[in-house]
Amino acid sequence: MAERDAETWKGYAIVMRFSIQKSALMQAIQIVSKAVAVRTTKQVLSGILLEVSNQEIVATAYDMELGIQTRIYASDDNQLTVEQAGSIVLPARYFSEVIRKLPDTVITMQVANNYMTEISTASVEFHLHGIDAEEFPKLPTFVGVQGLQIQASMLDDLIRTTAFATANTEVRPILTGINVQCNHERLTFTATDGLRMATHYVHLTDAPVWQAVIPGKSMLELSKILPTDDSVVELYLTESHSLFVIGDTRFYTRLIDGTYPDTSRIIPTSHKTEITAAGQALLGAIDRAALIARDRDNHMVRMEIQNDTITVSSNSPEIGNVSETITVEQKTGDDLQIAFNARYVLDALRALDAAQVTARFNGTTQAFVIEKTGDQTMLQLISPVLWR
Amino acid sequence: MAERDAETWKGYAIVMRFSIQKSALMQAIQIVSKAVAVRTTKQVLSGILLEVSNQEIVATAYDMELGIQTRIYASDDNQLTVEQAGSIVLPARYFSEVIRKLPDTVITMQVANNYMTEISTASVEFHLHGIDAEEFPKLPTFVGVQGLQIQASMLDDLIRTTAFATANTEVRPILTGINVQCNHERLTFTATDGLRMATHYVHLTDAPVWQAVIPGKSMLELSKILPTDDSVVELYLTESHSLFVIGDTRFYTRLIDGTYPDTSRIIPTSHKTEITAAGQALLGAIDRAALIARDRDNHMVRMEIQNDTITVSSNSPEIGNVSETITVEQKTGDDLQIAFNARYVLDALRALDAAQVTARFNGTTQAFVIEKTGDQTMLQLISPVLWR
Repeated sequence: MAERDAETWKGYAIVMRFSIQKSALMQAIQIVSKAVAVRTTKQVLSGILLEVSNQEIVATAYDMELGIQTRIYASDDNQLTVEQAGSIVLPARYFSEVIRKLPDTVITMQVANNYMTEISTASVEFHLHGIDAEEFPKLPTFVGVQGLQIQASMLDDLIRTTAFATANTEVRPILTGINVQCNHERLTFTATDGLRMATHYVHLTDAPVWQAVIPGKSMLELSKILPTDDSVVELYLTESHSLFVIGDTRFYTRLIDGTYPDTSRIIPTSHKTEITAAGQALLGAIDRAALIARDRDNHMVRMEIQNDTITVSSNSPEIGNVSETITVEQKTGDDLQIAFNARYVLDALRALDAAQVTARFNGTTQAFVIEKTGDQTMLQLISPVLWR
Repeated sequence: MAERDAETWKGYAIVMRFSIQKSALMQAIQIVSKAVAVRTTKQVLSGILLEVSNQEIVATAYDMELGIQTRIYASDDNQLTVEQAGSIVLPARYFSEVIRKLPDTVITMQVANNYMTEISTASVEFHLHGIDAEEFPKLPTFVGVQGLQIQASMLDDLIRTTAFATANTEVRPILTGINVQCNHERLTFTATDGLRMATHYVHLTDAPVWQAVIPGKSMLELSKILPTDDSVVELYLTESHSLFVIGDTRFYTRLIDGTYPDTSRIIPTSHKTEITAAGQALLGAIDRAALIARDRDNHMVRMEIQNDTITVSSNSPEIGNVSETITVEQKTGDDLQIAFNARYVLDALRALDAAQVTARFNGTTQAFVIEKTGDQTMLQLISPVLWR
């Protein structure tokens, strides 16, 4: 190897060199990869920045919307040894594939001052063209900003139960975000696409007061890297960005400009019909009815509440029809017929994930509410379909 | 339900009625689904034919290329009870989804003489528009044809080690098939796309003499439904079709017309270089080199055999380069430099799936052979890439 090294590197100074266990580097690459730009004309954004200093590697990806940065500290496990501090940007796709396909051993990386990067083990030697680290954009700064702390599992739950309700078109950009509100006692996530709304809060103590609209897509990416244990995530905000600190990983996302609609005023305060039913039975019935409900009909399913039964049905002239009856566990108020988009109600029931759900209606044309029975921290509101 | 039945079925005679455990019906649907036509203007071909007779259901799908038929006999497990024999064609997509989403219980199906089909459990009631079973095409007939028997696992192995080498374009339709040859002693599968060839035989006793070209895609579908145990598959041929009988399932496929090229004459009978190397090490080196080998360069990877080492390398002006050296376990003959399409050699090495492989070369421009060391029942032949 020494001979080949001399040839390849002839005339170029080594500006960075370290060795590390393959698995540790691979893990860092996988974490930051979600923030690599996929379609971009700025080549540097489709790269991963490696900054190597004394016994530490910092890996960063940043597509100007989402930024993820993670750190590897030297340990007995990862066998990190830095011989020469420095930095480089490597094309994420090839860098990731090369590391993934290397045998599970200690690998050495070195960079020459022409940005050529060698990745090698005892038998293999890759050379990839790198890019000057100076070209990589700077992550937003969060200096002296007051943060709040939340359990990772709690944050994950807030995302899971609301993000699906954000708008997936840019017609009203503000609705593609989750409205995150914090007062001293509560952290509330709210999302709506205009036809349904999901809102969920958790109790906090001594939290700062603020509000921000964070892109729903970014939150879904965040939930993929959240640990499943009860470790603590720190959340910081500026006027333009939010930052989530998860152990050695920092997750940055821009905020969405604009005023979020006042969703509190659309939550009905009274109702004419209230039912409580088994969550799984209701979900199963609507899921089956949705098979016959077509795209072009807004996935319309009908529900008829009569005495102590709910009948869920749908029909299509071409395919056929379906009807299923389940028993309500409790009912107060009027009988009711209502139609809705099955996908919205399925999303809501899956988010609630409850043995028992309670739904409250105000006739055929008003939005209705579904909650976990006896739990008002989470609320799903859905507009009915009036006709097809 | 009785009341609703009376309404729906009023004026129509019941022409078929049975009940069965959901899981048994679902399994039959899954088996035959591979032969349902996906894009067709003949609606009946996108359906599944159910023929119900005394204590037996026969399910059939047939897209005119591939036909799969399976039988369910009444048993304690499946609780099949036939009340009225008859037949119907149901739209495969909806029928399959409806059965999949039903709870795991006994379901009842009944068909009216307007082809409306009711699928119901105690609480759910689906109605699907069916099609007259008379419109469903007849499967090819195999009467008085002599068959051969082969273990399912052996048949699966023959398919796995050859089908990938069939052509995936219709430029020469005959090359999209596997050439299946049988003499008294051997059953041989051969596939080639013109740039590489895979051939594999197993020993048989007292087998009939015949030859047929069976579509590679159909064989891959067959391998998905083959049992993994050592049960026996029966294989029958006519002038136009083949039939594989696997327990209660019959798998039909048309044959490809035309004369298969005489592949035996292109297998080299001598060589100038022979090496034996560890299969996994060679596969790993070529897999890594392929990362840098681009589509537009035919995935070209170079191999240099010098003394007792193999160096695998590739390079791309835009991305970089890679070089990996492994030790040969045995070598006879000349040193050699050769270039090849990495995907072809990876396919071959994965098919061989061998601890040790032996490769034989006749210089830089001749096709080379790879075999499992000490086993000549399987042979992979690959054309080199001469330039890029």
